[in-house]
Amino acid sequence: MPNKDYIELGFAKYDLKREKIKGFPEVILALGKSNKQLTEIISKAIKRTKKLLVTKTTAEQYEAIRKAFAGTKIKSKYFETAKLVYIGDLAGKKIGKIAVVCAGTADVPVAEEAGLCAEAFGSRVERLYDVGVAGIHRLLDNVDVFKGCNTVIVVAGMDGALPSVVGGLISVPLIAVPTSVGYGSSFKGLAALLTMLNSCAVGLSVVNIDNGFGAAYQAHLINKLAVGNK
Amino acid sequence: MPNKDYIELGFAKYDLKREKIKGFPEVILALGKSNKQLTEIISKAIKRTKKLLVTKTTAEQYEAIRKAFAGTKIKSKYFETAKLVYIGDLAGKKIGKIAVVCAGTADVPVAEEAGLCAEAFGSRVERLYDVGVAGIHRLLDNVDVFKGCNTVIVVAGMDGALPSVVGGLISVPLIAVPTSVGYGSSFKGLAALLTMLNSCAVGLSVVNIDNGFGAAYQAHLINKLAVGNK
Amino acid sequence: MPNKDYIELGFAKYDLKREKIKGFPEVILALGKSNKQLTEIISKAIKRTKKLLVTKTTAEQYEAIRKAFAGTKIKSKYFETAKLVYIGDLAGKKIGKIAVVCAGTADVPVAEEAGLCAEAFGSRVERLYDVGVAGIHRLLDNVDVFKGCNTVIVVAGMDGALPSVVGGLISVPLIAVPTSVGYGSSFKGLAALLTMLNSCAVGLSVVNIDNGFGAAYQAHLINKLAVGNK
Amino acid sequence: MPNKDYIELGFAKYDLKREKIKGFPEVILALGKSNKQLTEIISKAIKRTKKLLVTKTTAEQYEAIRKAFAGTKIKSKYFETAKLVYIGDLAGKKIGKIAVVCAGTADVPVAEEAGLCAEAFGSRVERLYDVGVAGIHRLLDNVDVFKGCNTVIVVAGMDGALPSVVGGLISVPLIAVPTSVGYGSSFKGLAALLTMLNSCAVGLSVVNIDNGFGAAYQAHLINKLAVGNK
Amino acid sequence: MPNKDYIELGFAKYDLKREKIKGFPEVILALGKSNKQLTEIISKAIKRTKKLLVTKTTAEQYEAIRKAFAGTKIKSKYFETAKLVYIGDLAGKKIGKIAVVCAGTADVPVAEEAGLCAEAFGSRVERLYDVGVAGIHRLLDNVDVFKGCNTVIVVAGMDGALPSVVGGLISVPLIAVPTSVGYGSSFKGLAALLTMLNSCAVGLSVVNIDNGFGAAYQAHLINKLAVGNK
Amino acid sequence: MPNKDYIELGFAKYDLKREKIKGFPEVILALGKSNKQLTEIISKAIKRTKKLLVTKTTAEQYEAIRKAFAGTKIKSKYFETAKLVYIGDLAGKKIGKIAVVCAGTADVPVAEEAGLCAEAFGSRVERLYDVGVAGIHRLLDNVDVFKGCNTVIVVAGMDGALPSVVGGLISVPLIAVPTSVGYGSSFKGLAALLTMLNSCAVGLSVVNIDNGFGAAYQAHLINKLAVGNK
Amino acid sequence: MPNKDYIELGFAKYDLKREKIKGFPEVILALGKSNKQLTEIISKAIKRTKKLLVTKTTAEQYEAIRKAFAGTKIKSKYFETAKLVYIGDLAGKKIGKIAVVCAGTADVPVAEEAGLCAEAFGSRVERLYDVGVAGIHRLLDNVDVFKGCNTVIVVAGMDGALPSVVGGLISVPLIAVPTSVGYGSSFKGLAALLTMLNSCAVGLSVVNIDNGFGAAYQAHLINKLAVGNK
Amino acid sequence: MPNKDYIELGFAKYDLKREKIKGFPEVILALGKSNKQLTEIISKAIKRTKKLLVTKTTAEQYEAIRKAFAGTKIKSKYFETAKLVYIGDLAGKKIGKIAVVCAGTADVPVAEEAGLCAEAFGSRVERLYDVGVAGIHRLLDNVDVFKGCNTVIVVAGMDGALPSVVGGLISVPLIAVPTSVGYGSSFKGLAALLTMLNSCAVGLSVVNIDNGFGAAYQAHLINKLAVGNK
Repeated sequence: MPNKDYIELGFAKYDLKREKIKGFPEVILALGKSNKQLTEIISKAIKRTKKLLVTKTTAEQYEAIRKAFAGTKIKSKYFETAKLVYIGDLAGKKIGKIAVVCAGTADVPVAEEAGLCAEAFGSRVERLYDVGVAGIHRLLDNVDVFKGCNTVIVVAGMDGALPSVVGGLISVPLIAVPTSVGYGSSFKGLAALLTMLNSCAVGLSVVNIDNGFGAAYQAHLINKLAVGNK
Repeated sequence: MPNKDYIELGFAKYDLKREKIKGFPEVILALGKSNKQLTEIISKAIKRTKKLLVTKTTAEQYEAIRKAFAGTKIKSKYFETAKLVYIGDLAGKKIGKIAVVCAGTADVPVAEEAGLCAEAFGSRVERLYDVGVAGIHRLLDNVDVFKGCNTVIVVAGMDGALPSVVGGLISVPLIAVPTSVGYGSSFKGLAALLTMLNSCAVGLSVVNIDNGFGAAYQAHLINKLAVGNK
Repeated sequence: MPNKDYIELGFAKYDLKREKIKGFPEVILALGKSNKQLTEIISKAIKRTKKLLVTKTTAEQYEAIRKAFAGTKIKSKYFETAKLVYIGDLAGKKIGKIAVVCAGTADVPVAEEAGLCAEAFGSRVERLYDVGVAGIHRLLDNVDVFKGCNTVIVVAGMDGALPSVVGGLISVPLIAVPTSVGYGSSFKGLAALLTMLNSCAVGLSVVNIDNGFGAAYQAHLINKLAVGNK
Repeated sequence: MPNKDYIELGFAKYDLKREKIKGFPEVILALGKSNKQLTEIISKAIKRTKKLLVTKTTAEQYEAIRKAFAGTKIKSKYFETAKLVYIGDLAGKKIGKIAVVCAGTADVPVAEEAGLCAEAFGSRVERLYDVGVAGIHRLLDNVDVFKGCNTVIVVAGMDGALPSVVGGLISVPLIAVPTSVGYGSSFKGLAALLTMLNSCAVGLSVVNIDNGFGAAYQAHLINKLAVGNK
Repeated sequence: MPNKDYIELGFAKYDLKREKIKGFPEVILALGKSNKQLTEIISKAIKRTKKLLVTKTTAEQYEAIRKAFAGTKIKSKYFETAKLVYIGDLAGKKIGKIAVVCAGTADVPVAEEAGLCAEAFGSRVERLYDVGVAGIHRLLDNVDVFKGCNTVIVVAGMDGALPSVVGGLISVPLIAVPTSVGYGSSFKGLAALLTMLNSCAVGLSVVNIDNGFGAAYQAHLINKLAVGNK
Repeated sequence: MPNKDYIELGFAKYDLKREKIKGFPEVILALGKSNKQLTEIISKAIKRTKKLLVTKTTAEQYEAIRKAFAGTKIKSKYFETAKLVYIGDLAGKKIGKIAVVCAGTADVPVAEEAGLCAEAFGSRVERLYDVGVAGIHRLLDNVDVFKGCNTVIVVAGMDGALPSVVGGLISVPLIAVPTSVGYGSSFKGLAALLTMLNSCAVGLSVVNIDNGFGAAYQAHLINKLAVGNK
Repeated sequence: MPNKDYIELGFAKYDLKREKIKGFPEVILALGKSNKQLTEIISKAIKRTKKLLVTKTTAEQYEAIRKAFAGTKIKSKYFETAKLVYIGDLAGKKIGKIAVVCAGTADVPVAEEAGLCAEAFGSRVERLYDVGVAGIHRLLDNVDVFKGCNTVIVVAGMDGALPSVVGGLISVPLIAVPTSVGYGSSFKGLAALLTMLNSCAVGLSVVNIDNGFGAAYQAHLINKLAVGNK
Repeated sequence: MPNKDYIELGFAKYDLKREKIKGFPEVILALGKSNKQLTEIISKAIKRTKKLLVTKTTAEQYEAIRKAFAGTKIKSKYFETAKLVYIGDLAGKKIGKIAVVCAGTADVPVAEEAGLCAEAFGSRVERLYDVGVAGIHRLLDNVDVFKGCNTVIVVAGMDGALPSVVGGLISVPLIAVPTSVGYGSSFKGLAALLTMLNSCAVGLSVVNIDNGFGAAYQAHLINKLAVGNK
């Protein structure tokens, strides 16, 4: 079965078909994987793809990856804030434009996960951070960021209100990302998630709490469609 | 015990002390009371107070009240949208200023409960309705409503995001009222409640879902303090 | 203030800016509005827009609308399954392609809300119904529906598993709509909502339970971007 | 853009408008911020304001702040129980009166956050601790604390019942703060939060679980209005 | 098997052993039973016991019972507020003393279920209604009701705070009954239930929401032990 | 495409493959289907299968079915308690043995759904009703029902404790069915569901609340395996 | 005010009235108290009472207590499993009888908290551990433990089913204690709590998750009443 | 009482009857047991049984077990991924066939718990890992694993959608195991649990989150029945 659409590793089946369908190799979620599993998947997969993305990677997990490929041709880069690993060549040309906006400084890690993933996929990204609605002039002073965007990613914890306001200002699709930032009745992001699902703004859809990667994927697909790179 | 601080009715003890402490007679919550209980409480209480407020009153309950006092000196008025009953003299002079703002048309019943209660307590009220944040120009075009206010009541269902934005625009205390307006994951107002509790705006506190009355009470106490009518 | 960006009705501010920004007049949510409010908003708004969409409309609400405009030039059409009202001219040219897929027959009302809204916005829609994953050959036999689509709307109640499977088969963005279809531990759509938010498929985002309208809006914006009608 | 209403730091936009509107510089929430971010915000902000408050600060975060400004003119003070940092001149004249009351010893950290914040804002504060309703004589013996108050902050975990009782004894607005104190079905403060939202006492509104800061802000605004310092 | 400890009815097995163990015949919960099932169980059971209690009985269910036994020796009495049916001889001597206290008028139905059940079991009951903690003088003025009690049942909806206060005033066991009275975030009694489970008062245990019957059973067993009627 | 594995109805795709795989034609869930949809599916499907089962059918829905096929060869039978419809020939030989046990009389509808479905599938069923654990002698007196069983279905609402006890007495697989029977903190079956999922008994698995049908399907598959009718 | 009914410590008001009312000095909950607070409360309180109980005490907290009173007359004893501290003379005569029963070995810490507290209060206790209902012969073989009991405490985590079975076997009040033992959908004791609140057994009431102390208090009050030591 | 059906250890009653009824000795859950309790139970139990299984065992707990029996005849083996301990002779003949399938690499620990337990019980097991539905070709390419199976265990976290698809492909009973794998709104496995309980596939029942052991037990009982080893 040499032509199978996945790499068989026993504990994992690295999906080769995903790149054919979606245009980017299967992204690896480090969460819940052992160091040994991670390095084994990466070493097998990189032979078939030229680039890899590893998400939700702890510093300790990255250290294991770094060591495993030290002295080899496999280059990796770790973005600590975003807990993201770039492996191989992710420096290609960027197309279109996605804005990544976040409500507070504590939301930056998720916003960076979104921004860096979108860039890895090949989208051009512009960032606007700490523009929560309680000081709305910060947002209104910076609406230029939305010019020429094909889609906007809005990241917010606590009250999760930012997407509702941004959604009213833009004409393109908005991907809302609740974060687990907050305390007490934020219930680890549940409050922000519910706010976004119940937003009165139109042209808005939501991904899982802290799922910057998922938002980037969706935004990149939209950006690609808009640019015409089908 | 003729000097007791309450009227004993067996199934109820109408609290006379509340007026002494708070400055307004105990307000009657119609929810869960039978027609017979309602009319009995009202007829006993009105002899000791000059005015009464009955909240969460169905049209059917009001009909029973109206009939019970038809032909007597006890005058009542029913506000159907707000499910509120005014009994006796609630037309006194209004002091200070409270703004009552709501996000959508479906929030009007709760906003009206808040506004009419605040007026009954003796506050001057100015209303601004349907200024949800998804079309934020509607709010920004009307910020004059906040001028001279001592407090602002903000009523919103669905995403409950309006208080966070209003809170950033005003210098006085904001009382946020989530409503049960919405569907699906609004979970009958839970989404809006959590949004408000997690608001990044400062000078904001929250009352129960659909509790326009409670917001009005709190706002009136603040308004009264500001006016100096201590 | 004759040039205001909204129509002032006291209990409502019909937002005229939305059409300028999004390309379609503000859609009216009938839920929680009285018959009087509905007809008043419609009669004022239709003078400024050529078309209107009213969602979550009960048969009784539509009857009031129909009566109010009987004998006038304002034409309306009611889609009972989708609880949707078309007012004015919504028959324009359709662009691109959106697939609307649903898991079971009981999900059809939400799928139809999505499909009819998308058509009203101006997108071409193709439908595929009752292809839940428990009999997956029904889906796999019909993957042709996805050909040429710029986006896919997937509607499912109960286990909400369909988007995860469809997401793996397509290269374009997927908008997932959980429905309140089910009983017991479906908790009125919560189960399906959580399934979709936690989907392992990429290029997928989620709207509120039963929010076919919201999915259609998002899908139409994507479709429009893809077609190049910016 | 030298006159912008915020300080641009990339990861943060320190809001200068907040002081103009509310009368106190934007308070910094340390939760979720890195040491580097904290010290950078503080060093930039303190140049434009004369005083700063940092909330939810761990001892380790404060140590980084202390070190960063050691040897400079910027003076800071850490209140470990309250996890609060005073920076600059917060010793100004105190006005009016706020009572801060808590139910149990384990609620003291949140009560102290409230009390110290209110004092930083410029209110005079009087404290009454460990007067939970299960030994109600402790509260009834100390009602003098409420004399002359313009508002009362009541902090309670576990059953969260104290605000309901205090609310019946006072004529001024009450700000209720649920705490995460408790175990089992307290669900980290949810029980106390729900109790307070459903309180039968009037003139009571609620802030987020453990949000002593938020309660203090609201109480200070009320106190300021009452004193007439508008 | 004529000596079995239950009456076999196919759809039910009326438990005869319960009376031997607990001292009172198995109580019948009408909820979820058809009229036919109810009358069949009653007609079979009453032959073996001299008395029966039927709880959570709708007026319509009672009407079926009444009709079924009209003209027979089986006497029944319906307490509409408490939705309770007495069948046969429940007028025996009452022992000891139980106080039944409730917070608001809307809690009376559950309090009456408790009181009437306890009387049916054979306990002497004294009632004190509408003494919620927001007007605490109403409770403090009536503490005489607790004199000589062997146990106290406290019934409260909304904030459910009353048991915490009563628990601090008495030396005997307290049975707390949350009710579904309230709206919004009372979540049909969940708020009151959590309050009671987290009460700081000692000597307090809790039964299900609206379970006046269960509280009465527990209280009667305690009262019986105290009186010495073992 | 005349050989497709399903019948295309537009709003539905009746799955013909299910019978090939599972041995019984696709069962129709009436919940959420219109009368028109129901009768259309049935009339098309019965031509290809000899028998049909319709679950969660209201009396009103059955009436529509009955009328639609009155005078035709299609015979149907309605079991009102179980809300179940038999269509066509379901009277075949029964194999093996399944015991269906329920805790209370109010659980009988779900137990009957389970029992009648299992019989329709072709299993022999023995019933034991109203043997809740609070009077455990009723269960212990009837353990003979388990003799020769290949599997046992245990149905219980309220505390849902019966499966834990039965599971300790039998050697064969147990399928536990929580029901929505109860009030207050039963939260419509959630309490019973959680009890069963956390059961200490081994050889036990759980289906959705009120899902008697699902339990019967699973039990029948097990029974069939045990009898050897593979 | 030397005759106050509490000891004033600023951060605490040790309640002296509780002993007068309930017959045992206020019990100290170590949870959430600092070592300094604990030792200060104990040193002040023990001068006015002859005995003290400290619950939910970590080994580290006890070590601080031990050190603080080393070399003094104040004797303390730590029960590590139960996280309980005895201080002073708790060795008095034991009255009546309480049975403490638990479902599994992992429930023993809570059962021991209950048993040791009840003994400290002055009740005689008999223990029966690991008699979960999945192996019901272990319970049925040991029913002698209930002979002569005035009340029974039943402790169970996971499915929480044991109280329902025990409740059917005994004639005296049962106090049910859910524990946080379990995993997955036990949700830290919520499953067991709901099971117990919905128990079909009569003469049963419930305390908070893991609240062995609370159960012991209630049980001791009942036992004392039964013995006649009023 | 030398013939008792359990071994009395005070804190535990090791159940000997379970082996007689179910065919395998009582399995020991390490969770919540001290090292001392574990080794004491094992040393007593192994004398009466020839084999033992210990589940949810941390590496630290196993180390204590290993040390306790070092140098004795009692042989043990630790499976770290599955947190499972084999003690004594578990190498017997394997019967029938069970397939264990999991959705992602992070689900392997629970899948291994299931597989290794089923093998210990005496079933033959075949594994298929990382076949989540988002890349459904990986599952469809491997359906041979289901050939000859008597039952299938499907393990999945995150969206928990795999059982719904597998259920449609097989004719034998499916045991679904949700795992706590995921983040954000997976709520530690709740999302996957609800998905499975609401699955549209038939012949499917569910066990607790992460309960690989429970699934294995149920599957083994079914496998044993199918093989005829009754």
